[in-house]
Amino acid sequence: MNDKAETPVTVIGLGLMGQALARAFLKAGHPTTVWNRTTSKADELVAEGARLAPTIGDALKAGSLTIICVTDYRAMHELLGASDIDLDGRTLINLTSGDSAQAREAARWAEQRGARYLDGAIMAIPSAIGTTEAMILHSGPQPDFETHKPTLDALGTVTYLGGDHGLASLYDVAGLAMMWSILNAWLQGTALLRTAGIDAATYAPFARRIATGVAEWLPGYAEQIDSGSFPAEVSALETDARAMAHLIEESEAVGVNAELPRLIKAMADRAIAAGHGSEQYPVLIEEFSRPRND
Amino acid sequence: MNDKAETPVTVIGLGLMGQALARAFLKAGHPTTVWNRTTSKADELVAEGARLAPTIGDALKAGSLTIICVTDYRAMHELLGASDIDLDGRTLINLTSGDSAQAREAARWAEQRGARYLDGAIMAIPSAIGTTEAMILHSGPQPDFETHKPTLDALGTVTYLGGDHGLASLYDVAGLAMMWSILNAWLQGTALLRTAGIDAATYAPFARRIATGVAEWLPGYAEQIDSGSFPAEVSALETDARAMAHLIEESEAVGVNAELPRLIKAMADRAIAAGHGSEQYPVLIEEFSRPRND
Ligand SMILES: NC(=O)c1ccc[n+]([C@@H]2O[C@H](COP(=O)([O-])OP(=O)(O)OC[C@H]3O[C@@H](n4cnc5c(N)ncnc54)[C@H](OP(=O)(O)O)[C@@H]3O)[C@@H](O)[C@H]2O)c1
Ligand SMILES: NC(=O)c1ccc[n+]([C@@H]2O[C@H](COP(=O)([O-])OP(=O)(O)OC[C@H]3O[C@@H](n4cnc5c(N)ncnc54)[C@H](OP(=O)(O)O)[C@@H]3O)[C@@H](O)[C@H]2O)c1
Repeated sequence: MNDKAETPVTVIGLGLMGQALARAFLKAGHPTTVWNRTTSKADELVAEGARLAPTIGDALKAGSLTIICVTDYRAMHELLGASDIDLDGRTLINLTSGDSAQAREAARWAEQRGARYLDGAIMAIPSAIGTTEAMILHSGPQPDFETHKPTLDALGTVTYLGGDHGLASLYDVAGLAMMWSILNAWLQGTALLRTAGIDAATYAPFARRIATGVAEWLPGYAEQIDSGSFPAEVSALETDARAMAHLIEESEAVGVNAELPRLIKAMADRAIAAGHGSEQYPVLIEEFSRPRND
Repeated sequence: MNDKAETPVTVIGLGLMGQALARAFLKAGHPTTVWNRTTSKADELVAEGARLAPTIGDALKAGSLTIICVTDYRAMHELLGASDIDLDGRTLINLTSGDSAQAREAARWAEQRGARYLDGAIMAIPSAIGTTEAMILHSGPQPDFETHKPTLDALGTVTYLGGDHGLASLYDVAGLAMMWSILNAWLQGTALLRTAGIDAATYAPFARRIATGVAEWLPGYAEQIDSGSFPAEVSALETDARAMAHLIEESEAVGVNAELPRLIKAMADRAIAAGHGSEQYPVLIEEFSRPRND
């Protein structure tokens, strides 16, 4: 056990995820104090070496940092909002899921009460916690992150995003949008190919190869967005739109769902209608940045 | 020049793509005959060593295989449909974009006229032709593909998909759906992060990393589809749906477009309504396989 592994840690909230977090700290050798509304959820952890704090106030005093992982921000405020709870000088790392506005508001609230506050988002399932597969995003003051990173490393691949407390939530949902979009595109392709008797396992490596290839374009395409200039170096949006029509026609002809193809084309058509047909795909950032409710 | 590079080739259709194809054959050392409705489009190629055939019939006789690359299948039928054009014993490789039904119908038509026929789809822009980056998909009788693969290799990364002539078109649109879906998810994330002052270049590596990671799941998820059994080994669809609600709320709260998030959730909600909430994401194949028009 080295110095870093002796840092005492507190975990508040012992749902599926909170238990996994506490267990990872224990495994890494950290003295770990836990607290949960329903006390019985601490039983296994106590058997594994955790200390159950009798009150939240006691739990907060035990660790040099306190991880909070409850259902939502409302639950966190219910737990820590009482005026008799002393947050002064404490460090809170809130891994509860929420949106960027909730994270920024919680940061103001915690700082007013004298606490250091980092917001976080967990991109992993409980069983992955403690492995490098678990991506855990953090935002807030960088010095506080750097101080506690050696301890947080016990949880997985720990990343710092920036000083704005809302960033962890934003990156989290952006990453999930990527995940579901890849899965949906793969399901669209699988549905198409199954109409020709091709099974999912046969098609999947092709989908993987396309996805991996396209992912490599993103940094280059990002330069077009940042410069606000979208020359059609690879192909013009109008050319894409014609191929999008093929995708819709093919989906309809073989009798699979065409909602995703139609949304893809609708967004491109709007950008073309706005005069961007001879520019390149990333010009669609203008459509994605604009709300539309219908 | 080796044996394979001496195979004479014909290219019919000298638009942007047809010219690139003919040029790649010339560069690889193949005696290349070309034909185009508008003769002047052959000028540069002739200067580079191509032979311009006076008629289509003459063009067809010159090559041991004939590549066709025109606007659409209708144009191909207009060109080759005349009764005085002799296709008997010829090998046609049609790289014109179309749908799977058109490809299958063209195969029947060509075979009735005594030709060997492969259908293909080009997943590349003209400037990539002749490099390994150009993916060119083929479907139809495997022996014909194998015979001509050494010649076709001059065009790029040449892939054989199976005997059903419709497969090249189906894989093509499926791959494009993946491409646009990744770009759209990246644009959604970029739009979200820009509201917090994060530029596209800062966000792009994160999106790339998520995309590359998720792509690796596809072969495993495909096994669930092929077995028709969707145990929630990683997470249940209901859990995904709650996080999808976060994505919508966050997009609306920061004022970016939420159509893609809403479609993602709508498809999952339908699967949950159909009783699949405790199963895993690939169970959505049922929704993607079913048309819905509204
Ligand atoms: N599970 C995952 O796969 C996963 C993945 C990424 C992120 N997350 C996030 O992690 C957080 C926790 O998730 P989970 O899976 O651990 O949820 P869970 O199993 O449902 O546990 C919820 C926890 O919140 C506590 N809680 C809820 N309302 C409370 C209140 N009003 N006062 C005090 N405590 C309250 C519960 O206490 P009781 O035990 O007393 O009810 C329990 O400890 C959520 O924000 C979730 O989005 C989860
Ligand atoms: N360009 C790309 O990035 C790209 C990428 C992948 C796939 N493709 C596919 O490749 C095919 C050709 O594309 P392209 O970019 O070369 O198009 P293009 O530059 O517009 O050329 C179209 C070609 O088709 C010929 N044509 C059209 N209608 C005809 C008719 N009725 N009779 C005879 N010839 C006719 C044209 O002849 P004229 O010169 O006499 O008009 C010309 O040779 C399309 O199916 C396209 O989807 C293109």
